Amino acid sequence: MASSSSPSVLLFLLLFTIAATAKTSESLSTVFPRAIPGSALKQVPNAKKPEPKFPFKTQYFPQLLDHFTFTPKSSTIFYQKYLINAQYWSHGAPIFVYTGNEGDINWFASNTGFLLDIAPSFRAMLVFIEHRFYGESMPFGKESYKSPETLGFLNSQQALADFAVLIRSLKQNLSSEGSPVVVFGGSYGGMLAAWFRLKYPHVAIGALASSAPILQFDDITPWSSFYDAVSQDFKDASLNCYEVIKGSWAELEAMSAKEGGLAEVSRTFRTCKDIKSVYSAQDWLWSAFVYTAMVNYPTKANFMMPLPAYPVEEMCKIIDRFPHGATNVSRAFAAASLYYNYSGTEKCFDLENATDAHGLHGWDWQACTEMVMPLTCSNESMFPPSPFEYKEFSDQCMRKYGVMPRPHWITTEFGGSRIEQVLKRSASNIIFSNGMQDPWSRGSVLKNISASIVALVTKKGEYITQHNFSFHFDFI
Amino acid sequence: MASSSSPSVLLFLLLFTIAATAKTSESLSTVFPRAIPGSALKQVPNAKKPEPKFPFKTQYFPQLLDHFTFTPKSSTIFYQKYLINAQYWSHGAPIFVYTGNEGDINWFASNTGFLLDIAPSFRAMLVFIEHRFYGESMPFGKESYKSPETLGFLNSQQALADFAVLIRSLKQNLSSEGSPVVVFGGSYGGMLAAWFRLKYPHVAIGALASSAPILQFDDITPWSSFYDAVSQDFKDASLNCYEVIKGSWAELEAMSAKEGGLAEVSRTFRTCKDIKSVYSAQDWLWSAFVYTAMVNYPTKANFMMPLPAYPVEEMCKIIDRFPHGATNVSRAFAAASLYYNYSGTEKCFDLENATDAHGLHGWDWQACTEMVMPLTCSNESMFPPSPFEYKEFSDQCMRKYGVMPRPHWITTEFGGSRIEQVLKRSASNIIFSNGMQDPWSRGSVLKNISASIVALVTKKGEYITQHNFSFHFDFI
Repeated sequence: MASSSSPSVLLFLLLFTIAATAKTSESLSTVFPRAIPGSALKQVPNAKKPEPKFPFKTQYFPQLLDHFTFTPKSSTIFYQKYLINAQYWSHGAPIFVYTGNEGDINWFASNTGFLLDIAPSFRAMLVFIEHRFYGESMPFGKESYKSPETLGFLNSQQALADFAVLIRSLKQNLSSEGSPVVVFGGSYGGMLAAWFRLKYPHVAIGALASSAPILQFDDITPWSSFYDAVSQDFKDASLNCYEVIKGSWAELEAMSAKEGGLAEVSRTFRTCKDIKSVYSAQDWLWSAFVYTAMVNYPTKANFMMPLPAYPVEEMCKIIDRFPHGATNVSRAFAAASLYYNYSGTEKCFDLENATDAHGLHGWDWQACTEMVMPLTCSNESMFPPSPFEYKEFSDQCMRKYGVMPRPHWITTEFGGSRIEQVLKRSASNIIFSNGMQDPWSRGSVLKNISASIVALVTKKGEYITQHNFSFHFDFI
Repeated sequence: MASSSSPSVLLFLLLFTIAATAKTSESLSTVFPRAIPGSALKQVPNAKKPEPKFPFKTQYFPQLLDHFTFTPKSSTIFYQKYLINAQYWSHGAPIFVYTGNEGDINWFASNTGFLLDIAPSFRAMLVFIEHRFYGESMPFGKESYKSPETLGFLNSQQALADFAVLIRSLKQNLSSEGSPVVVFGGSYGGMLAAWFRLKYPHVAIGALASSAPILQFDDITPWSSFYDAVSQDFKDASLNCYEVIKGSWAELEAMSAKEGGLAEVSRTFRTCKDIKSVYSAQDWLWSAFVYTAMVNYPTKANFMMPLPAYPVEEMCKIIDRFPHGATNVSRAFAAASLYYNYSGTEKCFDLENATDAHGLHGWDWQACTEMVMPLTCSNESMFPPSPFEYKEFSDQCMRKYGVMPRPHWITTEFGGSRIEQVLKRSASNIIFSNGMQDPWSRGSVLKNISASIVALVTKKGEYITQHNFSFHFDFI
């Protein structure tokens, strides 16, 4: 069933950019944890193989703007995009739903070969539902991101209700109310899948939640664990590599503090234009290391960027091979260049005008409202020590969006510190799959909780391979 | 523990007024099912016993207007009233929360002696939380009922979130996060208690849901069962009584159709002013019979009205004792007068200007939005046959409130036709208590579903007595 050349793509990522600059940078988009929807692994197209045809039909569902109030505005309809593949399905057979996360649903569908792989043996219909306020599913069209008046309707509970309403309608239209529904998702989509099973057990009989850090809220998971995990990935590759990166930040700061320092940093970083702040260079390095730790796949891949197999190890080889006496900054730059320029086509780097090709900035809003996941850098990490100051965080959200975060809402709505006991007693049929090289897995459920709330953990893995994923859905 | 003279008050009522006139009457408040918050049984104060001191302290909690959006308006704070009795509680001991329904919380607290009875043996704190938009808990003060712009925030999901946020805050303030919370409620409050356990298992470890018709949505429970149950209560008391009431409607219609008919109806019904429509008289009778079926307690009581023990039987005695040849209408009027004038103090009846002493009209809004419980009268009932036409219903809601009902939302959000299977697999620790003389019990869960989702059914009862209620909360 599973083609051996195509790695499982159920490891999704919550990617993340600079946190250490929080004290100085005003740009939330580079300050706070930011999810980049990622299906894990997209293989670089092999010249010999043609790109496969996109195996989904696009549909649009008239969705309610607000499920939880009855104000006149709440009944506004928007069109929510979803994708269907029914080629293996027959009446009454299962429906596998991907609970879309923060990005264009086509992107997820293109990169989730796992569901296409397992669909035939379950005779399952596949449905990928786009999350509101991402991709084409914009409740207010081009005005959707205009202000809190519009963005206010972007949150996880509305998204879950969207899924419930759409699935119910779909089953009714198919006259297949008896079809069992299983929800799948990774990263934020994995959190949604798990939460959907908790809140809508009458709609989905089970969930597979991959790399879903549902415990990364309040103080359930240590705040430093994310960056400690990133650092450990590099340390595992090479202790020297870890130390070089750890030493590069102060060196970079000192370089920029000299007269003409920013120009020198700009030259060192081969920027297209001179940078205005050293934090741009710091962000750029930081992102490269964090993203790469999340996509340290054992094969060549193309997630956000084309990368070789085991890119963390490749970065560390670059660092370790430098001649004695080279600066930490120049080594760190060379390593980061692997991430930004593996194809070798970039003549210079634009550090201060990053594009948002996948329209992911909705996550910044979500992080400023309900998705408050405090992350810090400890002294043991390879990043500069960085605290999480709630006051500062919320002030920034207020300045940027005019919104106050509700930092304890997610744990109130979905469960907090005692969630594992609650899952044991009051839930069933959830698989939490985790590859421990993915730093976000630290905030997921890592132990079996009951016979049907299970954790699949791959210690060295970034993702669950299809072979590992032989878990039997005995509830279907 | 339980004082033998004080009946349990965990049977609450969803009271209900005329449905048969839906085709002609424009008044939703008398057309659609309407809940009257009722604690079941309030004993008529005995002259020998002084009124007990109200054993609760009143508090106000700063509550969010809208938990499920982040628009600027959503963060408006209103003050939600709640009542606390901590006299039996010690740190770490259980907290019993009454999930308030559609009315003033003091009214529920005054009539829920059951919780006061059991509090000492559990060393439990009692907390009665008022439902938003009822009593003093008005998000927009006196403007709260002004329009859909304000009323739009009145619904069950917001109420459940209110409870969750308040309980979490309360436990934190008490430094007693480990205290197990059990939620209790009757009627709509019982639905809320059951739903709260389903949606917030991490906040409440169990629920007692009394007379909670969570299955009275869509077509899960036969639409005619409610009125069939009312009719059966009267038939059980006396077949003649049932037949007299059943025959009275056409007779009333004929009486009013004659010249001067309405004046004659007004005289017969001893109205304070001549009535303008025969439907006022019909509504008046209808309400008396339905309400009385719901409060057919075996003791003197004072719920909405003072009534003798077994008031259905007393009504039927009045009907049966009439001399041969008396009209059905005059008999029905005399029976209904028991409900409206048991104290004998009413000189005349005001049929067309019913007061809303308990501020219950919020339920009309709820019925027009999410609480769409279709009820019909079959030919077997003692009421005139009456269909439920969704189109007509929704047109009326649009005319009255400018809102379209969402008739399938409750079953999408909380579960529908297969809810019992879902409860079996994905829930625990809910007691559904039902007295089968209460017509609303027909829409509740009536069979044990699992070891910890149990139904307590009292066939002839209106309520669960304390003696019956020895069910052990083994999860505490």
